[in-house]
Amino acid sequence: MFSKETYQARRAKLKQSVGSGLLLFLGNEESGMNYADNTYHFRQDSTFLYFFGLPYASLAAVIDIDNDREIIFGDELTIDAIVWMGTQPTLKEKSEATGLHEVRPFREIESYLKQAQQKGQTIHYLPTYRAEHQLKLFAWLGIVPEAEKPSIPFIMGVVNQRIYKSAEEIEEIEKACNVTADMHLAAMRTVRPGIYESEVAAVVAETAYKHNYELSFPTIATINGQTLHNHDHSHLIKSGDMLLLDAGAETEMGYAGDMSSTIPADKKFTQRQKDVYDIQVAAHEAAVAALRPGIKFVDVYEQACAVIMQGMKDLGFAKGDPAEAVKAGAHAMFMPCGLGHMMGLDVHDMENLGEEYVGYNGKPKSSQFGRKSLRLGRELEPGFVLTIEPGVYFIPELIDLWRSEGKFLEFLDYDKLDTYKDFSGIRNEEDYLITEEGARRLGKRIPLHTDEVENEHC
Amino acid sequence: MFSKETYQARRAKLKQSVGSGLLLFLGNEESGMNYADNTYHFRQDSTFLYFFGLPYASLAAVIDIDNDREIIFGDELTIDAIVWMGTQPTLKEKSEATGLHEVRPFREIESYLKQAQQKGQTIHYLPTYRAEHQLKLFAWLGIVPEAEKPSIPFIMGVVNQRIYKSAEEIEEIEKACNVTADMHLAAMRTVRPGIYESEVAAVVAETAYKHNYELSFPTIATINGQTLHNHDHSHLIKSGDMLLLDAGAETEMGYAGDMSSTIPADKKFTQRQKDVYDIQVAAHEAAVAALRPGIKFVDVYEQACAVIMQGMKDLGFAKGDPAEAVKAGAHAMFMPCGLGHMMGLDVHDMENLGEEYVGYNGKPKSSQFGRKSLRLGRELEPGFVLTIEPGVYFIPELIDLWRSEGKFLEFLDYDKLDTYKDFSGIRNEEDYLITEEGARRLGKRIPLHTDEVENEHC
Repeated sequence: MFSKETYQARRAKLKQSVGSGLLLFLGNEESGMNYADNTYHFRQDSTFLYFFGLPYASLAAVIDIDNDREIIFGDELTIDAIVWMGTQPTLKEKSEATGLHEVRPFREIESYLKQAQQKGQTIHYLPTYRAEHQLKLFAWLGIVPEAEKPSIPFIMGVVNQRIYKSAEEIEEIEKACNVTADMHLAAMRTVRPGIYESEVAAVVAETAYKHNYELSFPTIATINGQTLHNHDHSHLIKSGDMLLLDAGAETEMGYAGDMSSTIPADKKFTQRQKDVYDIQVAAHEAAVAALRPGIKFVDVYEQACAVIMQGMKDLGFAKGDPAEAVKAGAHAMFMPCGLGHMMGLDVHDMENLGEEYVGYNGKPKSSQFGRKSLRLGRELEPGFVLTIEPGVYFIPELIDLWRSEGKFLEFLDYDKLDTYKDFSGIRNEEDYLITEEGARRLGKRIPLHTDEVENEHC
Repeated sequence: MFSKETYQARRAKLKQSVGSGLLLFLGNEESGMNYADNTYHFRQDSTFLYFFGLPYASLAAVIDIDNDREIIFGDELTIDAIVWMGTQPTLKEKSEATGLHEVRPFREIESYLKQAQQKGQTIHYLPTYRAEHQLKLFAWLGIVPEAEKPSIPFIMGVVNQRIYKSAEEIEEIEKACNVTADMHLAAMRTVRPGIYESEVAAVVAETAYKHNYELSFPTIATINGQTLHNHDHSHLIKSGDMLLLDAGAETEMGYAGDMSSTIPADKKFTQRQKDVYDIQVAAHEAAVAALRPGIKFVDVYEQACAVIMQGMKDLGFAKGDPAEAVKAGAHAMFMPCGLGHMMGLDVHDMENLGEEYVGYNGKPKSSQFGRKSLRLGRELEPGFVLTIEPGVYFIPELIDLWRSEGKFLEFLDYDKLDTYKDFSGIRNEEDYLITEEGARRLGKRIPLHTDEVENEHC
């Protein structure tokens, strides 16, 4: 945990920005897998962590702005539980460490909220993302899931604090990034023909776990890099394959790292792989070079996409003017996902609070295929932490779909694309902090260029 | 998946045993960690797996006994999703593979259930263990969590099938046990002074993951073996410590293994450790020797506890008649948990259906401290799969509590116990199938005796 002053200052600022009403923070519960007591690893809600620092299940908190009270609702361990779980600091002691002096039994939150309702106080709550949150809002406030109305002032207040990473947060994120880098290095030393994707994913997880870290998101370790939502690890890696690894660590405090790399099964990339890889890296480096306060991230995205379209034209997959093609959206054939996203206590930072607030400062984002997957478009500011992760993918289903729709015939050569349906996909990803001067990579550098990857390779 | 005939036969048998009404099976959803799309690994409900075999999120199923219909409710992928997730068999095709011919859109389940309600059909459902189940029962049937009434005939029907493991299930469980054994062997080769518990837990997880298996429950890897619910891996292992490892693998089909071992930090156990360890192993072997059809598991438990009490008496921690002490419950000082539990698709098999049905055949179990933690008491039958896991623990909080209460002064020597408050705890655990003749260990043998553990050790 950070110092109690950090949490006190965060809460004071939030109180000021929302101004009035009662802020309700729903901590997370243990999540049962196949029965209640067989739980996934516990993950506290990130906003709860940010303002209260307590990484324990079955808590809720209230900042009652109108009455100037801050209360943690939660229960102390029974003596029976202490016999099974060992002696621990009390909840009261843990709360004091984050500057909170009022701790009340969990069951009292219901009456506290109902009284606030009766007195006509505004009860602010955030968007729910777990069924347990929805059950609580229903049980305590009678709000059914379809009728939830998360508070925009509360959301904006949280976003406008969490979006600027403090020095102590950056230190923590950098720890996550360093272990994340080690995960990728371990993978590069493991990938070879004849092993399964799961063996790579296993080494990657081991690298995080041995630091007592978690994975910040489910690992992608796949020879089918073109399949973007791919968490299957069942394939045998064969000579000629590339393994796309997207994986990150989460520190004990909950801060995330997130990197991607693309590793040849063999000792060297083939020329066909290298040709595409080099274009992807050129787009990556163009994006990194563009990072600075004041630039809109959507413009960085456009620049990276234009580099990819120029490269695709050089290789014969695309035609026409690259900038025009990007404007029209034809680049989404190769890069249907975004260029990057905010990162912090969540790997897609604050995704549950709404992309429009986090990534677009409340403004609507594009609905164009490809561009709509860009989670971040706003002007960059010092203190933002984000990922850079362009990619080049050859997606058979998308090639077939767009060909059948006669889409972008002026920009794409479908006959040439057909010959790369077996290519898979390439992505590299690094994490950056926006500084006053420009940007700084977080965590140690992992191999980026093909020769660097080959040198690290087993 | 097993053959379609397996699933058809299971469903036919269940229909017959419940007899009438409509059986509602709630499949599990993806579980978001810190936002909806950052999910824990997906785990299907075990009863859903048993009867329908489909390991996919966002499904529900109905066996409408009155109208002789079997329906899967779920949605096919959109073309957008296929672009991101790759081409896959349709839900219709997947369902056909388990012998199910009727697939309907997920949203239709609500009207199907409401019509059944209106027609006066009995809607049977099982106990819920995820908030999402509770939300569904509320949305579809208007049942609030406090008013849920799980169906006893449905529970008993499921228990009476799942409790007898078929040959093909045993084969699957044995795969889990073999990988589980490898996890323990890997740990024995890793534990040494100067590394962290997390490094052992990491190697254990890696061993499961590389087979594309999951952990069947959160790993216990701790130098504080006396703390029974201990998932903390943050301690440095020091010379003189023992590491208690309780860990298991889960196959891709969802079957579990579950073993425990106790590993010295140093190359050899100390004499003090060995003295207690040997008693624990003697109890373990007595329990295994007693396994056979017809014996009550609570009697096996009594025998193992008597061995422990005799041993504790020999070492000076206990006094009086060991059998009397066990009857009174004094043995729970050393072994407050049970001797074992059923194992199958859940590591504590069917725990969500209720221990009294699974472990006690519907009869009430003891409320005595210690004995009440025994999850299994019933008469054993061929086809049962269970764990054997006695332990000897020195729990400082329990020693202090009972001393302060003046408990069992005739059976326990608190002064001697006080000198072992730093000892921690010892457990060994293996998995057994009850056969016609007796019992058979599942999976390869892991080192059990101190010299075997020392020989495997790094």
